[in-house]
Amino acid sequence: MSGEIAYIHWLRKQQTMPPDVVLGPGDDCAVVHQAGRFQLLTTDMLMDGVDFLVNEVAPQRIGRKAMAVNLSDVAAMAGVPNYALVSVALPRGQNTQSLAEGLFSGMKNLADQFGVTIIGGDTNTWHGPLVISITLLGEAGPNGYVTRAGAQAGDWLFVTGPLGGSLRGHHLDFTPRVREALELAEVVRLKAMIDLSDGLSTDLHHILEESGCGARIDNVPVNDGSSLEGALTDGEDFELLFAVSPVDGAKLLDRKGLWKIGECTGHGATIVVAGAEQPLTARGWQHHFGN
Amino acid sequence: MSGEIAYIHWLRKQQTMPPDVVLGPGDDCAVVHQAGRFQLLTTDMLMDGVDFLVNEVAPQRIGRKAMAVNLSDVAAMAGVPNYALVSVALPRGQNTQSLAEGLFSGMKNLADQFGVTIIGGDTNTWHGPLVISITLLGEAGPNGYVTRAGAQAGDWLFVTGPLGGSLRGHHLDFTPRVREALELAEVVRLKAMIDLSDGLSTDLHHILEESGCGARIDNVPVNDGSSLEGALTDGEDFELLFAVSPVDGAKLLDRKGLWKIGECTGHGATIVVAGAEQPLTARGWQHHFGN
Repeated sequence: MSGEIAYIHWLRKQQTMPPDVVLGPGDDCAVVHQAGRFQLLTTDMLMDGVDFLVNEVAPQRIGRKAMAVNLSDVAAMAGVPNYALVSVALPRGQNTQSLAEGLFSGMKNLADQFGVTIIGGDTNTWHGPLVISITLLGEAGPNGYVTRAGAQAGDWLFVTGPLGGSLRGHHLDFTPRVREALELAEVVRLKAMIDLSDGLSTDLHHILEESGCGARIDNVPVNDGSSLEGALTDGEDFELLFAVSPVDGAKLLDRKGLWKIGECTGHGATIVVAGAEQPLTARGWQHHFGN
Repeated sequence: MSGEIAYIHWLRKQQTMPPDVVLGPGDDCAVVHQAGRFQLLTTDMLMDGVDFLVNEVAPQRIGRKAMAVNLSDVAAMAGVPNYALVSVALPRGQNTQSLAEGLFSGMKNLADQFGVTIIGGDTNTWHGPLVISITLLGEAGPNGYVTRAGAQAGDWLFVTGPLGGSLRGHHLDFTPRVREALELAEVVRLKAMIDLSDGLSTDLHHILEESGCGARIDNVPVNDGSSLEGALTDGEDFELLFAVSPVDGAKLLDRKGLWKIGECTGHGATIVVAGAEQPLTARGWQHHFGN
Protein backbone atom coordinates (compact mmCIF):
# COMPACT_ATOMS: atom_id res chain seq x y z
CA MET A 1 0.00 0.00 0.00
CA SER A 2 1.93 2.98 -1.23
CA GLY A 3 -0.60 5.65 -2.01
CA GLU A 4 -4.21 6.67 -2.23
CA ILE A 5 -5.01 4.17 -4.96
CA ALA A 6 -3.75 1.27 -2.86
CA TYR A 7 -5.74 2.58 0.09
CA ILE A 8 -8.92 2.64 -2.01
CA HIS A 9 -8.35 -0.96 -3.08
CA TRP A 10 -7.91 -1.92 0.57
CA LEU A 11 -11.02 0.06 1.53
CA ARG A 12 -13.09 -1.60 -1.20
CA LYS A 13 -12.12 -5.04 0.07
CA GLN A 14 -13.26 -4.25 3.63
CA GLN A 15 -16.87 -3.72 2.70
CA THR A 16 -19.66 -5.32 0.75
CA MET A 17 -21.82 -2.70 -0.87
CA PRO A 18 -25.57 -3.00 -0.40
CA PRO A 19 -27.61 -3.27 -3.63
CA ASP A 20 -28.66 0.41 -3.66
CA VAL A 21 -25.02 1.53 -3.71
CA VAL A 22 -24.45 1.34 -7.46
CA LEU A 23 -20.89 2.65 -7.18
CA GLY A 24 -18.77 2.74 -4.00
CA PRO A 25 -15.37 4.28 -3.30
CA GLY A 26 -12.87 4.74 -6.14
CA ASP A 27 -14.62 6.78 -8.83
CA ASP A 28 -15.13 10.55 -8.92
CA CYS A 29 -18.44 10.19 -7.09
CA ALA A 30 -20.28 7.43 -5.29
CA VAL A 31 -23.66 6.59 -6.82
CA VAL A 32 -26.69 5.59 -4.77
CA HIS A 33 -29.93 4.44 -6.35
CA GLN A 34 -32.89 5.62 -4.28
CA ALA A 35 -36.54 5.99 -5.20
CA GLY A 36 -35.78 5.81 -8.92
CA ARG A 37 -33.04 8.46 -8.80
CA PHE A 38 -29.29 8.13 -9.06
CA GLN A 39 -27.76 10.32 -6.37
CA LEU A 40 -24.11 11.32 -6.75
CA LEU A 41 -21.95 11.97 -3.69
CA THR A 42 -18.38 13.22 -3.45
CA THR A 43 -16.13 14.77 -0.83
CA ASP A 44 -12.84 16.65 -1.05
CA MET A 45 -10.68 18.02 1.72
CA LEU A 46 -8.30 20.95 1.10
CA MET A 47 -5.45 21.88 3.42
CA ASP A 48 -3.32 24.99 3.84
CA GLY A 49 0.16 24.37 2.47
CA VAL A 50 -1.02 21.57 0.20
CA ASP A 51 -3.93 22.87 -1.84
CA PHE A 52 -3.52 26.61 -1.23
CA LEU A 53 -1.42 29.05 0.81
CA VAL A 54 -3.61 30.95 3.23
CA ASN A 55 -1.09 33.78 3.55
CA GLU A 56 -0.88 34.35 -0.19
CA VAL A 57 -4.40 33.86 -1.45
CA ALA A 58 -7.62 35.72 -0.61
CA PRO A 59 -10.12 33.65 1.41
CA GLN A 60 -12.72 34.03 -1.35
CA ARG A 61 -10.46 32.25 -3.85
CA ILE A 62 -9.70 29.47 -1.35
CA GLY A 63 -13.39 28.94 -0.66
CA ARG A 64 -14.10 29.03 -4.36
CA LYS A 65 -11.49 26.35 -5.05
CA ALA A 66 -12.87 24.09 -2.31
CA MET A 67 -16.28 24.21 -3.98
CA ALA A 68 -14.82 23.97 -7.50
CA VAL A 69 -12.87 20.72 -6.97
CA ASN A 70 -16.04 19.06 -5.71
CA LEU A 71 -18.06 20.42 -8.64
CA SER A 72 -15.39 19.00 -10.92
CA ASP A 73 -16.00 15.52 -9.47
CA VAL A 74 -19.72 15.81 -10.25
CA ALA A 75 -18.83 17.08 -13.74
CA ALA A 76 -16.69 13.96 -14.24
CA MET A 77 -19.83 11.84 -13.80
CA ALA A 78 -21.90 14.11 -16.10
CA GLY A 79 -23.98 14.93 -13.05
CA VAL A 80 -26.10 17.86 -11.91
CA PRO A 81 -24.90 19.17 -8.53
CA ASN A 82 -27.48 20.33 -5.99
CA TYR A 83 -26.48 20.42 -2.28
CA ALA A 84 -23.27 20.97 -0.33
CA LEU A 85 -22.17 20.49 3.28
CA VAL A 86 -19.12 22.46 4.41
CA SER A 87 -16.77 21.71 7.31
CA VAL A 88 -13.93 24.03 8.26
CA ALA A 89 -11.14 24.08 10.81
CA LEU A 90 -10.22 27.76 11.10
CA PRO A 91 -6.89 28.86 12.58
CA ARG A 92 -7.67 30.80 15.75
CA GLY A 93 -6.62 34.44 15.64
CA GLN A 94 -7.62 37.99 14.92
CA ASN A 95 -8.73 37.29 11.37
CA THR A 96 -10.82 34.22 12.07
CA GLN A 97 -14.12 35.93 11.45
CA SER A 98 -13.15 37.63 8.20
CA LEU A 99 -11.48 34.40 7.04
CA ALA A 100 -14.70 32.47 7.70
CA GLU A 101 -16.84 35.02 5.90
CA GLY A 102 -14.45 35.24 2.95
CA LEU A 103 -14.28 31.47 2.55
CA PHE A 104 -18.02 31.12 2.69
CA SER A 105 -18.55 34.00 0.28
CA GLY A 106 -16.19 32.38 -2.26
CA MET A 107 -17.93 29.02 -1.90
CA LYS A 108 -21.36 30.52 -2.16
CA ASN A 109 -20.64 32.60 -5.26
CA LEU A 110 -19.53 29.54 -7.19
CA ALA A 111 -22.27 27.37 -5.70
CA ASP A 112 -24.87 29.91 -6.88
CA GLN A 113 -23.49 29.74 -10.42
CA PHE A 114 -24.09 26.00 -10.46
CA GLY A 115 -27.43 25.87 -8.67
CA VAL A 116 -25.92 24.43 -5.49
CA THR A 117 -27.33 25.23 -2.03
CA ILE A 118 -25.16 24.98 1.08
CA ILE A 119 -27.50 23.11 3.42
CA GLY A 120 -25.24 22.43 6.38
CA GLY A 121 -21.79 22.41 7.86
CA ASP A 122 -19.53 22.35 10.86
CA THR A 123 -17.48 25.39 11.86
CA ASN A 124 -14.50 24.82 14.14
CA THR A 125 -11.51 26.82 15.33
CA TRP A 126 -8.17 25.40 16.42
CA HIS A 127 -4.47 26.20 16.61
CA GLY A 128 -3.68 24.28 13.41
CA PRO A 129 -3.71 25.37 9.77
CA LEU A 130 -6.87 25.98 7.72
CA VAL A 131 -8.68 22.84 6.56
CA ILE A 132 -11.84 22.82 4.45
CA SER A 133 -13.88 19.75 3.67
CA ILE A 134 -16.88 19.89 1.35
CA THR A 135 -19.30 17.12 0.56
CA LEU A 136 -21.24 17.72 -2.62
CA LEU A 137 -24.39 15.94 -3.67
CA GLY A 138 -25.91 15.78 -7.10
CA GLU A 139 -27.81 13.52 -9.38
CA ALA A 140 -27.29 11.90 -12.71
CA GLY A 141 -28.16 14.11 -15.67
CA PRO A 142 -30.96 13.15 -18.10
CA ASN A 143 -28.57 10.88 -20.00
CA GLY A 144 -27.33 8.98 -16.95
CA TYR A 145 -24.07 9.06 -15.06
CA VAL A 146 -20.61 8.25 -16.44
CA THR A 147 -17.92 6.26 -14.61
CA ARG A 148 -14.22 5.63 -15.23
CA ALA A 149 -14.97 2.10 -16.46
CA GLY A 150 -16.34 1.68 -19.95
CA ALA A 151 -13.65 2.74 -22.41
CA GLN A 152 -12.78 0.09 -25.04
CA ALA A 153 -10.06 -0.47 -27.61
CA GLY A 154 -10.80 1.73 -30.61
CA ASP A 155 -12.49 4.50 -28.60
CA TRP A 156 -11.26 8.04 -29.06
CA LEU A 157 -9.94 10.05 -26.13
CA PHE A 158 -10.67 13.76 -25.71
CA VAL A 159 -9.82 16.49 -23.21
CA THR A 160 -11.78 19.71 -22.64
CA GLY A 161 -8.81 22.09 -22.56
CA PRO A 162 -5.06 22.55 -22.83
CA LEU A 163 -3.06 21.15 -19.93
CA GLY A 164 -0.11 21.97 -17.70
CA GLY A 165 1.12 24.86 -15.58
CA SER A 166 -1.95 24.99 -13.35
CA LEU A 167 0.05 26.27 -10.35
CA ARG A 168 0.24 29.72 -11.95
CA GLY A 169 -3.32 30.40 -10.79
CA HIS A 170 -5.55 28.11 -12.84
CA HIS A 171 -5.87 25.65 -9.94
CA LEU A 172 -7.61 28.39 -7.95
CA ASP A 173 -9.71 29.98 -10.64
CA PHE A 174 -10.70 27.19 -13.01
CA THR A 175 -14.31 26.71 -14.01
CA PRO A 176 -15.50 23.18 -13.30
CA ARG A 177 -16.76 21.54 -16.49
CA VAL A 178 -20.25 20.76 -15.24
CA ARG A 179 -22.09 22.37 -18.16
CA GLU A 180 -19.66 21.02 -20.77
CA ALA A 181 -20.17 17.46 -19.51
CA LEU A 182 -23.96 17.75 -19.63
CA GLU A 183 -23.81 19.25 -23.12
CA LEU A 184 -21.51 16.46 -24.32
CA ALA A 185 -23.85 13.84 -22.85
CA GLU A 186 -26.61 15.23 -25.06
CA VAL A 187 -24.55 14.80 -28.23
CA VAL A 188 -22.56 11.59 -27.68
CA ARG A 189 -22.49 8.59 -25.40
CA LEU A 190 -19.70 9.25 -22.89
CA LYS A 191 -18.25 5.78 -22.29
CA ALA A 192 -15.77 6.75 -19.56
CA MET A 193 -14.79 10.05 -17.97
CA ILE A 194 -12.55 11.50 -15.25
CA ASP A 195 -11.52 14.99 -14.20
CA LEU A 196 -7.81 15.74 -14.44
CA SER A 197 -6.76 16.42 -10.87
CA ASP A 198 -3.53 14.40 -10.62
CA GLY A 199 -2.12 15.05 -14.10
CA LEU A 200 -3.08 13.56 -17.47
CA SER A 201 -0.72 10.58 -17.32
CA THR A 202 -1.93 9.49 -13.87
CA ASP A 203 -5.62 10.11 -14.49
CA LEU A 204 -5.44 8.38 -17.88
CA HIS A 205 -4.16 5.29 -16.07
CA HIS A 206 -7.16 5.46 -13.72
CA ILE A 207 -9.45 5.26 -16.76
CA LEU A 208 -7.38 2.47 -18.32
CA GLU A 209 -7.25 0.44 -15.12
CA GLU A 210 -10.98 0.71 -14.46
CA SER A 211 -11.89 0.11 -18.10
CA GLY A 212 -9.38 -2.69 -18.68
CA CYS A 213 -7.89 -1.30 -21.88
CA GLY A 214 -4.84 0.63 -23.10
CA ALA A 215 -4.23 3.91 -24.90
CA ARG A 216 -2.02 5.53 -27.49
CA ILE A 217 -1.66 9.28 -26.95
CA ASP A 218 -0.39 11.40 -29.83
CA ASN A 219 -1.74 14.92 -29.48
CA VAL A 220 -1.64 16.61 -26.08
CA PRO A 221 -2.73 20.28 -26.03
CA VAL A 222 -0.28 22.25 -23.91
CA ASN A 223 -0.99 25.51 -22.11
CA ASP A 224 1.06 28.59 -23.02
CA GLY A 225 4.23 28.56 -20.95
CA SER A 226 3.96 24.89 -20.07
CA SER A 227 5.51 21.84 -21.76
CA LEU A 228 4.49 18.35 -22.81
CA GLU A 229 6.02 17.12 -19.58
CA GLY A 230 3.99 19.67 -17.62
CA ALA A 231 0.83 18.77 -19.51
CA LEU A 232 1.36 15.10 -18.65
CA THR A 233 2.39 15.41 -15.03
CA ASP A 234 1.19 18.69 -13.51
CA GLY A 235 -1.88 18.22 -11.39
CA GLU A 236 -5.01 20.31 -10.99
CA ASP A 237 -5.90 21.04 -14.61
CA PHE A 238 -9.50 20.10 -13.77
CA GLU A 239 -10.31 19.54 -17.42
CA LEU A 240 -12.25 16.40 -18.31
CA LEU A 241 -10.75 13.37 -20.05
CA PHE A 242 -13.30 11.13 -21.75
CA ALA A 243 -13.70 8.27 -24.18
CA VAL A 244 -16.27 7.98 -26.97
CA SER A 245 -16.78 5.65 -29.91
CA PRO A 246 -15.11 6.69 -33.20
CA VAL A 247 -18.54 7.48 -34.68
CA ASP A 248 -19.34 9.79 -31.76
CA GLY A 249 -15.78 11.13 -31.76
CA ALA A 250 -16.13 12.26 -35.37
CA LYS A 251 -19.04 14.49 -34.27
CA LEU A 252 -16.74 16.27 -31.82
CA LEU A 253 -13.72 16.93 -34.03
CA ASP A 254 -14.79 20.41 -35.05
CA ARG A 255 -16.21 21.34 -31.69
CA LYS A 256 -14.62 24.31 -29.93
CA GLY A 257 -12.91 23.56 -26.61
CA LEU A 258 -12.26 19.88 -27.31
CA TRP A 259 -9.01 18.16 -28.23
CA LYS A 260 -8.68 14.57 -29.44
CA ILE A 261 -5.54 13.36 -27.68
CA GLY A 262 -5.41 9.73 -28.83
CA GLU A 263 -7.23 6.42 -28.98
CA CYS A 264 -7.80 3.44 -26.75
CA THR A 265 -5.92 0.24 -27.46
CA GLY A 266 -6.11 -3.31 -26.13
CA HIS A 267 -3.56 -2.82 -23.38
CA GLY A 268 -0.60 -0.71 -22.25
CA ALA A 269 -0.18 3.02 -22.57
CA THR A 270 2.08 4.78 -25.05
CA ILE A 271 2.72 8.30 -26.20
CA VAL A 272 4.02 9.47 -29.55
CA VAL A 273 6.74 12.08 -29.07
CA ALA A 274 8.56 13.46 -32.12
CA GLY A 275 7.27 10.56 -34.22
CA ALA A 276 8.50 7.89 -31.78
CA GLU A 277 6.06 5.81 -29.73
CA GLN A 278 7.20 5.24 -26.14
CA PRO A 279 5.69 3.90 -22.91
CA LEU A 280 3.59 6.35 -20.95
CA THR A 281 3.70 5.79 -17.20
CA ALA A 282 1.57 7.35 -14.49
CA ARG A 283 4.11 10.01 -13.64
CA GLY A 284 1.61 12.57 -12.51
CA TRP A 285 1.51 13.82 -8.98
CA GLN A 286 0.43 11.13 -6.54
CA HIS A 287 -0.69 11.21 -2.91
CA HIS A 288 2.09 9.23 -1.28
CA PHE A 289 2.00 7.87 2.23
CA GLY A 290 5.18 8.07 4.28
CA ASN A 291 7.98 10.55 3.76
CA MET B 1 -20.68 37.43 15.64
CA SER B 2 -18.96 35.75 18.54
CA GLY B 3 -19.28 32.02 17.99
CA GLU B 4 -20.65 29.22 15.90
CA ILE B 5 -24.26 30.12 16.63
CA ALA B 6 -23.76 33.66 15.37
CA TYR B 7 -22.01 32.26 12.28
CA ILE B 8 -24.98 30.01 11.55
CA HIS B 9 -27.37 32.95 11.81
CA TRP B 10 -25.18 34.85 9.37
CA LEU B 11 -25.01 31.84 7.08
CA ARG B 12 -28.78 31.40 7.12
CA LYS B 13 -29.26 35.01 6.06
CA GLN B 14 -26.96 34.62 3.05
CA GLN B 15 -29.10 32.04 1.34
CA THR B 16 -32.67 31.36 0.39
CA MET B 17 -33.42 27.67 0.66
CA PRO B 18 -35.11 26.02 -2.32
CA PRO B 19 -38.48 24.36 -1.56
CA ASP B 20 -37.06 20.82 -1.36
CA VAL B 21 -34.68 21.86 1.46
CA VAL B 22 -37.07 21.39 4.38
CA LEU B 23 -34.41 22.31 6.93
CA GLY B 24 -31.15 24.15 6.23
CA PRO B 25 -28.16 24.93 8.45
CA GLY B 26 -28.62 25.17 12.22
CA ASP B 27 -30.23 21.94 13.37
CA ASP B 28 -28.52 18.59 14.01
CA CYS B 29 -29.11 17.56 10.38
CA ALA B 30 -30.26 19.25 7.22
CA VAL B 31 -33.42 17.74 5.75
CA VAL B 32 -34.06 17.43 2.03
CA HIS B 33 -37.37 16.23 0.62
CA GLN B 34 -36.78 14.21 -2.54
CA ALA B 35 -39.02 11.74 -4.31
CA GLY B 36 -41.28 11.37 -1.28
CA ARG B 37 -38.43 10.73 1.15
CA PHE B 38 -36.92 12.94 3.82
CA GLN B 39 -33.15 12.64 3.55
CA LEU B 40 -31.06 13.71 6.56
CA LEU B 41 -27.55 15.08 6.09
CA THR B 42 -24.95 16.05 8.68
CA THR B 43 -21.22 16.65 8.80
CA ASP B 44 -18.73 16.83 11.67
CA MET B 45 -15.02 17.56 11.58
CA LEU B 46 -12.71 16.33 14.35
CA MET B 47 -9.22 17.68 14.94
CA ASP B 48 -6.21 16.42 16.88
CA GLY B 49 -5.74 18.44 20.06
CA VAL B 50 -9.39 19.52 20.12
CA ASP B 51 -11.54 16.40 19.84
CA PHE B 52 -8.90 13.75 20.62
CA LEU B 53 -5.17 13.41 21.26
CA VAL B 54 -3.59 11.30 18.56
CA ASN B 55 -0.61 10.44 20.75
CA GLU B 56 -2.73 9.16 23.61
CA VAL B 57 -5.62 7.37 21.95
CA ALA B 58 -5.64 4.35 19.63
CA PRO B 59 -6.60 5.18 16.02
CA GLN B 60 -9.57 2.79 16.23
CA ARG B 61 -11.11 4.83 19.05
CA ILE B 62 -10.51 8.09 17.17
CA GLY B 63 -12.15 6.72 14.03
CA ARG B 64 -14.99 5.35 16.12
CA LYS B 65 -15.61 8.76 17.71
CA ALA B 66 -15.62 10.52 14.33
CA MET B 67 -18.39 8.18 13.18
CA ALA B 68 -20.20 8.28 16.54
CA VAL B 69 -20.61 12.07 16.70
CA ASN B 70 -22.21 12.02 13.27
CA LEU B 71 -24.49 9.12 14.23
CA SER B 72 -25.49 11.15 17.28
CA ASP B 73 -26.66 13.98 15.01
CA VAL B 74 -28.87 11.56 13.06
CA ALA B 75 -30.15 10.15 16.37
CA ALA B 76 -31.10 13.69 17.42
CA MET B 77 -33.49 13.83 14.44
CA ALA B 78 -34.87 10.33 15.17
CA GLY B 79 -33.37 9.29 11.84
CA VAL B 80 -32.07 6.07 10.34
CA PRO B 81 -28.46 6.50 9.17
CA ASN B 82 -27.37 4.80 5.94
CA TYR B 83 -24.29 6.20 4.10
CA ALA B 84 -21.07 7.94 5.09
CA LEU B 85 -18.32 9.80 3.26
CA VAL B 86 -14.99 10.12 5.04
CA SER B 87 -12.23 12.69 4.48
CA VAL B 88 -8.95 12.57 6.34
CA ALA B 89 -5.78 14.67 6.51
CA LEU B 90 -3.16 12.25 7.85
CA PRO B 91 0.07 13.51 9.38
CA ARG B 92 2.91 12.30 7.16
CA GLY B 93 5.29 9.89 8.83
CA GLN B 94 6.22 6.30 9.51
CA ASN B 95 2.86 5.42 11.04
CA THR B 96 0.65 6.95 8.37
CA GLN B 97 -0.49 3.64 6.96
CA SER B 98 -1.34 1.99 10.29
CA LEU B 99 -3.03 5.21 11.42
CA ALA B 100 -5.19 5.22 8.27
CA GLU B 101 -6.13 1.57 8.68
CA GLY B 102 -6.84 1.94 12.40
CA LEU B 103 -9.03 4.98 11.86
CA PHE B 104 -10.97 3.28 9.11
CA SER B 105 -11.36 0.10 11.11
CA GLY B 106 -12.79 2.04 14.06
CA MET B 107 -15.19 3.91 11.81
CA LYS B 108 -16.26 0.79 10.00
CA ASN B 109 -16.93 -1.26 13.14
CA LEU B 110 -19.33 1.34 14.47
CA ALA B 111 -20.82 1.99 11.02
CA ASP B 112 -21.56 -1.74 10.70
CA GLN B 113 -23.39 -1.75 14.02
CA PHE B 114 -25.72 0.95 12.73
CA GLY B 115 -26.21 -0.30 9.17
CA VAL B 116 -24.06 2.45 7.67
CA THR B 117 -21.96 1.91 4.53
CA ILE B 118 -18.89 4.03 3.82
CA ILE B 119 -19.45 4.87 0.17
CA GLY B 120 -16.67 7.34 -0.49
CA GLY B 121 -13.98 9.59 0.84
CA ASP B 122 -10.83 11.57 0.31
CA THR B 123 -7.50 10.46 1.78
CA ASN B 124 -4.77 13.08 2.12
CA THR B 125 -1.42 13.36 3.84
CA TRP B 126 0.23 16.55 5.04
CA HIS B 127 2.61 17.94 7.64
CA GLY B 128 -0.22 19.14 9.88
CA PRO B 129 -2.15 17.33 12.63
CA LEU B 130 -4.78 14.66 12.03
CA VAL B 131 -8.16 15.95 10.81
CA ILE B 132 -11.17 13.75 10.09
CA SER B 133 -14.36 14.94 8.47
CA ILE B 134 -17.35 12.65 8.05
CA THR B 135 -20.57 13.40 6.25
CA LEU B 136 -23.39 11.08 7.26
CA LEU B 137 -26.64 10.58 5.40
CA GLY B 138 -29.80 9.05 6.65
CA GLU B 139 -33.51 9.29 6.36
CA ALA B 140 -36.42 10.06 8.63
CA GLY B 141 -37.68 7.07 10.58
CA PRO B 142 -41.23 5.74 10.10
CA ASN B 143 -42.57 8.40 12.48
CA GLY B 144 -40.89 11.34 10.78
CA TYR B 145 -37.95 13.49 11.75
CA VAL B 146 -37.62 15.67 14.86
CA THR B 147 -36.10 19.16 14.97
CA ARG B 148 -35.04 21.51 17.78
CA ALA B 149 -38.14 23.63 17.24
CA GLY B 150 -41.43 22.34 18.58
CA ALA B 151 -41.24 22.35 22.38
CA GLN B 152 -44.01 24.31 24.13
CA ALA B 153 -44.73 25.59 27.64
CA GLY B 154 -45.96 22.66 29.75
CA ASP B 155 -43.93 20.01 27.87
CA TRP B 156 -41.75 17.71 29.89
CA LEU B 157 -38.01 17.51 29.27
CA PHE B 158 -36.07 14.24 29.39
CA VAL B 159 -32.48 13.10 28.90
CA THR B 160 -31.35 9.59 27.96
CA GLY B 161 -28.55 9.28 30.52
CA PRO B 162 -26.64 10.87 33.39
CA LEU B 163 -24.42 13.78 32.43
CA GLY B 164 -20.99 15.26 33.11
CA GLY B 165 -17.39 14.09 33.22
CA SER B 166 -17.30 12.91 29.62
CA LEU B 167 -13.60 13.70 29.23
CA ARG B 168 -12.73 10.63 31.32
CA GLY B 169 -13.34 8.45 28.24
CA HIS B 170 -17.06 8.59 27.57
CA HIS B 171 -16.57 11.12 24.74
CA LEU B 172 -14.59 8.46 22.85
CA ASP B 173 -16.61 5.37 23.68
CA PHE B 174 -20.22 6.53 23.93
CA THR B 175 -22.94 4.75 22.03
CA PRO B 176 -24.94 7.12 19.85
CA ARG B 177 -28.63 6.98 20.79
CA VAL B 178 -29.90 6.05 17.35
CA ARG B 179 -31.95 3.05 18.49
CA GLU B 180 -33.25 4.79 21.60
CA ALA B 181 -34.55 7.70 19.52
CA LEU B 182 -36.35 5.41 17.08
CA GLU B 183 -37.87 3.40 19.94
CA LEU B 184 -39.05 6.60 21.65
CA ALA B 185 -40.59 7.82 18.40
CA GLU B 186 -42.74 4.66 18.36
CA VAL B 187 -44.10 5.33 21.85
CA VAL B 188 -44.46 9.12 22.05
CA ARG B 189 -44.47 12.16 19.81
CA LEU B 190 -41.05 13.75 20.16
CA LYS B 191 -41.78 17.47 19.90
CA ALA B 192 -38.17 18.70 19.95
CA MET B 193 -34.82 16.94 20.35
CA ILE B 194 -31.07 17.65 20.36
CA ASP B 195 -27.96 15.66 21.19
CA LEU B 196 -25.92 16.98 24.10
CA SER B 197 -22.58 17.86 22.52
CA ASP B 198 -21.92 21.30 24.08
CA GLY B 199 -23.22 20.67 27.59
CA LEU B 200 -26.81 20.51 28.88
CA SER B 201 -27.14 24.22 29.66
CA THR B 202 -25.96 25.30 26.19
CA ASP B 203 -27.88 22.68 24.26
CA LEU B 204 -31.04 23.33 26.28
CA HIS B 205 -30.82 26.94 25.17
CA HIS B 206 -30.61 25.79 21.53
CA ILE B 207 -33.93 23.97 22.01
CA LEU B 208 -35.48 26.96 23.81
CA GLU B 209 -34.30 29.44 21.21
CA GLU B 210 -35.54 27.39 18.26
CA SER B 211 -38.81 26.49 20.00
CA GLY B 212 -39.47 29.94 21.42
CA CYS B 213 -40.17 28.84 24.97
CA GLY B 214 -38.47 28.61 28.38
CA ALA B 215 -37.64 25.83 30.84
CA ARG B 216 -37.46 25.07 34.53
CA ILE B 217 -34.90 22.37 35.31
CA ASP B 218 -35.11 20.61 38.68
CA ASN B 219 -33.64 17.14 38.40
CA VAL B 220 -30.36 16.65 36.52
CA PRO B 221 -28.90 13.14 36.63
CA VAL B 222 -25.16 13.40 37.34
CA ASN B 223 -22.53 10.83 36.40
CA ASP B 224 -20.50 9.22 39.19
CA GLY B 225 -17.53 11.44 39.94
CA SER B 226 -19.04 14.48 38.23
CA SER B 227 -21.04 17.35 39.72
CA LEU B 228 -24.15 19.36 38.90
CA GLU B 229 -21.85 21.99 37.44
CA GLY B 230 -20.14 19.33 35.32
CA ALA B 231 -23.47 17.89 34.21
CA LEU B 232 -24.58 21.35 33.11
CA THR B 233 -21.44 22.55 31.41
CA ASP B 234 -19.23 19.63 30.34
CA GLY B 235 -19.58 18.89 26.65
CA GLU B 236 -19.71 15.63 24.76
CA ASP B 237 -22.23 13.67 26.80
CA PHE B 238 -23.94 12.70 23.53
CA GLU B 239 -27.14 11.82 25.34
CA LEU B 240 -30.40 13.09 23.88
CA LEU B 241 -32.47 15.92 25.35
CA PHE B 242 -36.08 15.93 24.21
CA ALA B 243 -39.49 17.43 24.92
CA VAL B 244 -42.81 15.59 25.00
CA SER B 245 -46.33 16.47 26.11
CA PRO B 246 -47.20 15.71 29.76
CA VAL B 247 -49.48 12.87 28.61
CA ASP B 248 -46.63 11.30 26.64
CA GLY B 249 -44.15 12.12 29.39
CA ALA B 250 -46.19 10.12 31.91
CA LYS B 251 -45.68 7.03 29.70
CA LEU B 252 -41.93 7.44 30.02
CA LEU B 253 -41.58 7.98 33.78
CA ASP B 254 -40.95 4.33 34.60
CA ARG B 255 -38.85 3.65 31.53
CA LYS B 256 -35.26 2.57 32.15
CA GLY B 257 -32.55 4.89 30.84
CA LEU B 258 -34.69 8.05 30.89
CA TRP B 259 -34.64 10.95 33.32
CA LYS B 260 -37.22 13.72 33.51
CA ILE B 261 -35.12 16.83 34.15
CA GLY B 262 -37.80 19.52 34.16
CA GLU B 263 -40.56 21.19 32.20
CA CYS B 264 -40.93 23.84 29.55
CA THR B 265 -42.20 27.26 30.55
CA GLY B 266 -43.28 30.35 28.66
CA HIS B 267 -39.88 32.01 28.61
CA GLY B 268 -36.53 32.18 30.39
CA ALA B 269 -34.54 29.30 31.81
CA THR B 270 -34.18 28.48 35.48
CA ILE B 271 -32.74 25.67 37.57
CA VAL B 272 -33.76 24.60 41.04
CA VAL B 273 -30.69 24.05 43.21
CA ALA B 274 -31.14 23.15 46.90
CA GLY B 275 -34.76 24.29 46.73
CA ALA B 276 -33.93 27.71 45.24
CA GLU B 277 -34.85 28.60 41.66
CA GLN B 278 -32.15 30.58 39.87
CA PRO B 279 -31.38 31.65 36.29
CA LEU B 280 -29.76 29.02 34.08
CA THR B 281 -27.44 30.46 31.44
CA ALA B 282 -25.81 28.73 28.50
CA ARG B 283 -22.53 28.17 30.30
CA GLY B 284 -21.63 25.04 28.40
CA TRP B 285 -18.59 24.85 26.19
CA GLN B 286 -18.91 27.05 23.11
CA HIS B 287 -16.97 27.28 19.86
CA HIS B 288 -15.52 30.78 20.15
CA PHE B 289 -13.91 32.68 17.34
CA GLY B 290 -10.82 34.73 18.17
CA ASN B 291 -8.50 34.16 21.08
